[in-house]
Amino acid sequence: MNAQDLNDYLAEVFPEATGYTVEAAGGDDLRARLSVGDRHLRPGGTVSGPTMFELADFAMYAAVLSRIGRVPLAVTTSANIDFMRKPAAGRDLLASVRMLKLGRVLAVGDVMIRSDGSDAIVARASLTYAIPPDARENGGLA
Amino acid sequence: MNAQDLNDYLAEVFPEATGYTVEAAGGDDLRARLSVGDRHLRPGGTVSGPTMFELADFAMYAAVLSRIGRVPLAVTTSANIDFMRKPAAGRDLLASVRMLKLGRVLAVGDVMIRSDGSDAIVARASLTYAIPPDARENGGLA
Amino acid sequence: MNAQDLNDYLAEVFPEATGYTVEAAGGDDLRARLSVGDRHLRPGGTVSGPTMFELADFAMYAAVLSRIGRVPLAVTTSANIDFMRKPAAGRDLLASVRMLKLGRVLAVGDVMIRSDGSDAIVARASLTYAIPPDARENGGLA
Amino acid sequence: MNAQDLNDYLAEVFPEATGYTVEAAGGDDLRARLSVGDRHLRPGGTVSGPTMFELADFAMYAAVLSRIGRVPLAVTTSANIDFMRKPAAGRDLLASVRMLKLGRVLAVGDVMIRSDGSDAIVARASLTYAIPPDARENGGLA
Repeated sequence: MNAQDLNDYLAEVFPEATGYTVEAAGGDDLRARLSVGDRHLRPGGTVSGPTMFELADFAMYAAVLSRIGRVPLAVTTSANIDFMRKPAAGRDLLASVRMLKLGRVLAVGDVMIRSDGSDAIVARASLTYAIPPDARENGGLA
Repeated sequence: MNAQDLNDYLAEVFPEATGYTVEAAGGDDLRARLSVGDRHLRPGGTVSGPTMFELADFAMYAAVLSRIGRVPLAVTTSANIDFMRKPAAGRDLLASVRMLKLGRVLAVGDVMIRSDGSDAIVARASLTYAIPPDARENGGLA
Repeated sequence: MNAQDLNDYLAEVFPEATGYTVEAAGGDDLRARLSVGDRHLRPGGTVSGPTMFELADFAMYAAVLSRIGRVPLAVTTSANIDFMRKPAAGRDLLASVRMLKLGRVLAVGDVMIRSDGSDAIVARASLTYAIPPDARENGGLA
Repeated sequence: MNAQDLNDYLAEVFPEATGYTVEAAGGDDLRARLSVGDRHLRPGGTVSGPTMFELADFAMYAAVLSRIGRVPLAVTTSANIDFMRKPAAGRDLLASVRMLKLGRVLAVGDVMIRSDGSDAIVARASLTYAIPPDARENGGLA
């Protein structure tokens, strides 16, 4: 699935996840953007930790879909996230996924999050998704 | 700070974090509840992973506050979470924190999340918070 | 498998892992001991981080075996470990495993490590093991 | 410190850590090699998980030293590792560190491990080191 297909599909299955967009998808990499709004902020104007977690989870899920197609039942089994810097105020967040493994049962990827316009890594996450057997039996693994 | 003080303070500093309540605080342990609402659900009615992350983060933050008092600047530096079972549909989630370390610089705790009415662990998280120097200099560490 | 069976089996398949012993196994819990020797120490006499990782991994593997029998191909897929205190000098380390999930594909457990004679947690680990399909097909899951 | 200085220093403070060598150090990156020997292997000839953990820990420690100089008391506070593929038999392992944050209190880095001669990532780790106050007060932070 390309970026447009992913956004259409994700808007359909996650109607509540507003503000997240896939910007580029291809090969082992994917980039997503969070258009930061008030609901993502802590007092003081910083994007909250749970929002960054959600961005990382969204981006990794999109990366899995981009590789194996529409698999609504893929689920996060574990995640590790380090918060390293405050995001820049008033800036969108960008998440870059690097898929490290796409096996029959588990997908593992790294996500780097930074503020738009800056190279400094704000947060780093690694996530593991379990891929349901149906996806594999149906030839979903492209 | 006891449970009531914590809820008053958290409602003030996190007005957007609705649905989360500290139920019991004391010693090395703390229990929090998420009153599950539509905004916490994925299609299908399951509480989303980011919501469980937010619950774990909320509970750990409350546990730190319960020990060192009002420290608005304590921040999560890292978190690890394993998602093990689907939460029961239509049930609140309960989070139990066990504080493992409360040092001068870092606080480390474990959080077990389960559905109300069940003993099965739905998710397990460990979180590390950095405690700002001011909290220590001001004698905040009780 | 009980503690004696586990030790016999582990000595056979991991002849190089000397110093590690299962002390008690039953239900969802297991306790292992590391008889600390020079090869486990950093200069200064502290048990090294990699040694504590090895102890946690050994204990979790033993806990999986205690539940599903001899499964040489179960492998660690991910681990998270927090080091919180220096171990006491000249003391063995004890690891307590709590099995949180034992599914068809993944086993997840928590391990708490402390110095013999102390209740303070020295390190906390969570580990995920992948269970090979054969173990399940052969009815290994007791 | 450059690669030669690091190896001299590490051999002095970790005489038991044989087989590990820093190959290149500079900027935000560092590469280390494990010359695989029998003591690193599981039955079947695969490098063990604890050995890969030790390699990641060694490489990250070297990367911290390369930036702040001789700081014997820097300690690992947390680590997360995903094991994704079996290492190739009979091959050395290479670890590449990317330093993501080098703050006054904490250093955070990512380590990718692969078999020599292959691009596939065998294991991925993220590690956090606590930097002792002395290192900072002495102007150690270059």
